[in-house]
Amino acid sequence: MSETNTKCGVALVGCGVVGGATATLLTRDSEILRGRCGTRIDLRYIVDLDHTHARELGLDESLLTADLTAALDDPDVQVVIELVGGITTAREITEQALRAGKHVVTANKALLAHAGPELYAVARENGVSIAFEASCAGGIPIIRALTDGLIVNRIDALYGIVNGTCNFILSAMVQEGKGYDRVLAQAQADGLAEADPTLDVSGEDSAHKLTILAGLAFGQNVDFDAVSIEGIDKLQLMDIQQGKALGYVIKLLAIAQRQGDGLCLRVRPVFIDIEHPLAWVSGPFNAVSVYGHATGHTMYYGRGAGGMPTASAVVADVVSVAQGLWPKLFAQLALWPDRCESANQLPIEEVRSRYYIRMLVEDRPGVFAQIGRVFAEEEISIASLLQPEVEETPSDDLATIVITTHVSREGAVRSALARCGELPTVRARPVCIGIVDEHPEQLWAEGEQQE
Amino acid sequence: MSETNTKCGVALVGCGVVGGATATLLTRDSEILRGRCGTRIDLRYIVDLDHTHARELGLDESLLTADLTAALDDPDVQVVIELVGGITTAREITEQALRAGKHVVTANKALLAHAGPELYAVARENGVSIAFEASCAGGIPIIRALTDGLIVNRIDALYGIVNGTCNFILSAMVQEGKGYDRVLAQAQADGLAEADPTLDVSGEDSAHKLTILAGLAFGQNVDFDAVSIEGIDKLQLMDIQQGKALGYVIKLLAIAQRQGDGLCLRVRPVFIDIEHPLAWVSGPFNAVSVYGHATGHTMYYGRGAGGMPTASAVVADVVSVAQGLWPKLFAQLALWPDRCESANQLPIEEVRSRYYIRMLVEDRPGVFAQIGRVFAEEEISIASLLQPEVEETPSDDLATIVITTHVSREGAVRSALARCGELPTVRARPVCIGIVDEHPEQLWAEGEQQE
Repeated sequence: MSETNTKCGVALVGCGVVGGATATLLTRDSEILRGRCGTRIDLRYIVDLDHTHARELGLDESLLTADLTAALDDPDVQVVIELVGGITTAREITEQALRAGKHVVTANKALLAHAGPELYAVARENGVSIAFEASCAGGIPIIRALTDGLIVNRIDALYGIVNGTCNFILSAMVQEGKGYDRVLAQAQADGLAEADPTLDVSGEDSAHKLTILAGLAFGQNVDFDAVSIEGIDKLQLMDIQQGKALGYVIKLLAIAQRQGDGLCLRVRPVFIDIEHPLAWVSGPFNAVSVYGHATGHTMYYGRGAGGMPTASAVVADVVSVAQGLWPKLFAQLALWPDRCESANQLPIEEVRSRYYIRMLVEDRPGVFAQIGRVFAEEEISIASLLQPEVEETPSDDLATIVITTHVSREGAVRSALARCGELPTVRARPVCIGIVDEHPEQLWAEGEQQE
Repeated sequence: MSETNTKCGVALVGCGVVGGATATLLTRDSEILRGRCGTRIDLRYIVDLDHTHARELGLDESLLTADLTAALDDPDVQVVIELVGGITTAREITEQALRAGKHVVTANKALLAHAGPELYAVARENGVSIAFEASCAGGIPIIRALTDGLIVNRIDALYGIVNGTCNFILSAMVQEGKGYDRVLAQAQADGLAEADPTLDVSGEDSAHKLTILAGLAFGQNVDFDAVSIEGIDKLQLMDIQQGKALGYVIKLLAIAQRQGDGLCLRVRPVFIDIEHPLAWVSGPFNAVSVYGHATGHTMYYGRGAGGMPTASAVVADVVSVAQGLWPKLFAQLALWPDRCESANQLPIEEVRSRYYIRMLVEDRPGVFAQIGRVFAEEEISIASLLQPEVEETPSDDLATIVITTHVSREGAVRSALARCGELPTVRARPVCIGIVDEHPEQLWAEGEQQE
C-alpha cells in the first residue's frame, strides 16, 4: 500500500521474556506491521547462549545462534536489539554494535542510567543512534512524548509510577489492608515479583528510569548517583491507613521538579491526593505525569512491564530507525545528555514539600507543646495535627499523633524529627512520608486567556 | 548545541485563541524551542482579516497581514498553519497552500473528518504533508501514539473522551447533582461552553475526532456520515444518579471497536465502571484509551482544548515537519485513509453492548412479567432489575424500574423498547443508555507468558 517499501535487517541479542515477545511480533505478527507501515523488518539472527525459551515459542530454528560476531559482520543487519540486561555484557555488546555501524535498540534502563551519555557519544561518532522507548514504562510511548509531542514545552515537573511490582504491592496493601511482607510473598507466588525483589522494591529501578526521563524532560545531564532513593520495603500498613483517612493514596513516585535554578530528583513512597489522576493507577500499571508550560498536565498510562508491552516499544523503535525517523531525531535534538550541561541536582535537604509525620508519644500534658516548639524553631508550619485512635498503640500510657505540614524544607523536617526523637516523651523513631500536591499548571500565563 | 541547525519559515493563517497562542510560542517562547531541539522556526506572516487579538497579545506588528497570496508566494515559507476553522474557507486555504508546495499544519477536525482523504491525496501529489496532531485532543500527542509508538499493534478498540465542554458538563452534573440546563448555563457564563454549544453537546465534534482517530487506529477509511451520534443534551439527572448507584459514571465516549470483520463507530453518553481509568477523567480534561494486541490498555490524558495546549500540538507538528520527520511518516505509513480500504462500518443495530434501561410503569402485579416476556422474545438477557425509590416518580400508582442487560444486539434492545413503549402499563418512553465494560486485553495470547 505504501509508496516506499523499506526493508531493515535486524539481529536480536537476548531471547528472554521480552526478547521472545519481540521475535514473536517480528515473525508471527509481521503482517500486522506490514499492513500498518509498509516497512519490512527482516529478523535475521536471534543470538543467545541458551535457546530453550526461543524453542518453547516455536521460533524459526534457522535464526538461532550463539555467534554475535556473525550478526555484527552481516552488512544486511542495520539494527541490533540488545535485550541481554545487566550492565557489563550489555555494554560490551552495545559498544561493539555501535562501532560496527549498527543502530542499537534497547530496553536496558540500568545501562542507560549509568552510561547513557558515553554510549550516545559513541553512537554519534559512528553515525548511528540508540533508541530506548522500551527502557521506561514498557509499552507507554513516553520517550516519544518527551522528544517529540511535547517538544515546545518547558517541562516543569515529571511524576512517574514506573515500577509495576511496587505499584502492585502498594495497591494490594491499600485495597486488602495487608502488610508488606504478606503482599510481597503473594506477589512472588503469582510471578509478579522477582525471587530477589531488591532492584524493584528498593526504588533503584525507578531511579534508573527517572534518570533517563528527567534528562530528556529537562535537557540536562542527570547523575544517577545523586538521585535520592527510598524504597517501599520499610512502609508500615498503619501509615498507609492513616494517610487514607486523610484523603491520600500511597504511591512509589519517581519525581523530577524544577526548584529555582535547580532540579529536585527523588524516588519515594509518597502520599498523593485521592483526586490526582496518578492515585487511580493501580495494580501492575504504570503512568507518567508531565507538566509542560504550554500543555499543562498530560499523563501517559499503560503496562510498564511484561513481554508483549515492552516488545511493542522495542519494535516501534526498530520501525522508527528503519523509516529513518529516530536517527534524525537522535542527531538533531538538543536534549541528549551527552550534549547538555549537567543538571544542578539539589541535595535532598533542599527539597521543598509537604510532609506526613507519625510519632508515638507519652499520653500526658505538655507533649504537644514540646513538639510544637521544635517545629516552630525549625520554621516548619503545621497544617494539621490529630491523635487518632490506633489499635496498634502498644500501651495505654502512649498515644499516636499524626502531623501534616505546610510546604517545608526537607532538611528542616529531618532536623526537627531528629530533635523530636531525642525528647524523652517521644518513644519511637518518627515516621515521615512526603505529600505530593498537584503541580500548579502554568498554561494561563501572561498573554494567554482561557478559551 | 545540536549538530544540524534547521531553519523553517512559517505562515500562520487565523489568529484567534489557538493562533494567538501558537504565535506566542513561536516568538515569546522561541528560546525554549531552540534549547530543546536546535530547530529555528521563523514565523514570517500572521494572516488574518482582523488583527485585534494579535495586537492584544502584543505580537510583532510587522508580521500582521491580510494578504495570504504574499505568504504563499514566499519561497522561504515551508509550512502554512491553518487555524481558520470551519470547512469552506479553511479547505480553500489548505488546498491553495498544498498546491503551492507548502506543508500544512492544522487543528481543523471538521475539515479532516469531512475531506481528509481528498486533502491527503492533494498533499501527496504536491510532495508535501498535512500534520494534524492538534485536531484531536488538544495537547495530548495521540496522533503520534497511533502512527508511531503503537505501530506494531493491531488496535482492537479505542475509547475517547474528546470533548472538554461535554466532559465538564457531565462531571458537574455528577458531582453537583444539578440538571443539564443549569450546568450548561454556568459553563457558558464561565466561558467553558460556547454561546451556541450545539457542535459540542450534540456529539458532532467528538464524531469528527473519532473519524480521524479511528482511521489511523484501524488503517481504514472511515465515513463520518455513517458514525452514529448521540449528544448529552437529552440526558436526565435521574439516570446519572441511578447509574451512579449501580457503580457507573456517565461519560460522552467516542467509541471505535472491532466486531468480527466490521467496525462499530459511535459517539454516545454511556455508563462506564467507576474503576475504569476513563471514569476518573473529570472537568475539561480529555483522555483516549487504546487497546492494542501487544500493549494491552494504554491511555493518554490531558487538556483537550484551550489556546496553549492546542498550540503546543501545532508547534510540535511544525517542528516535526521542519526536522523532516512527519513528511517521511506521512509518505511511508500505510494508515492514511486515502490509501486504505473503506471500513466495514456496522449499522448501529448490529452493535453488541450492555444496556441500562429505565421505565415508568404502572405499579401493579404482572407488569414485570409483561416486560420480561418482551425481553425474552427479543433474546435479551437481563443482568439486574430493580425498582428504586425515586422521588421524581409522578404518582403513587406508578413505579420506576431500572434494568441492566447482558451483552445484547442494539437492534434487539431498540425493538424491545419500542414494544414495551406500546404496552398500556408502560407510561413514558423508556430511557436507554449503553454500558461500556473494560475492553478485554489480548496481551497474554498464544506463545506469550506473563512475566
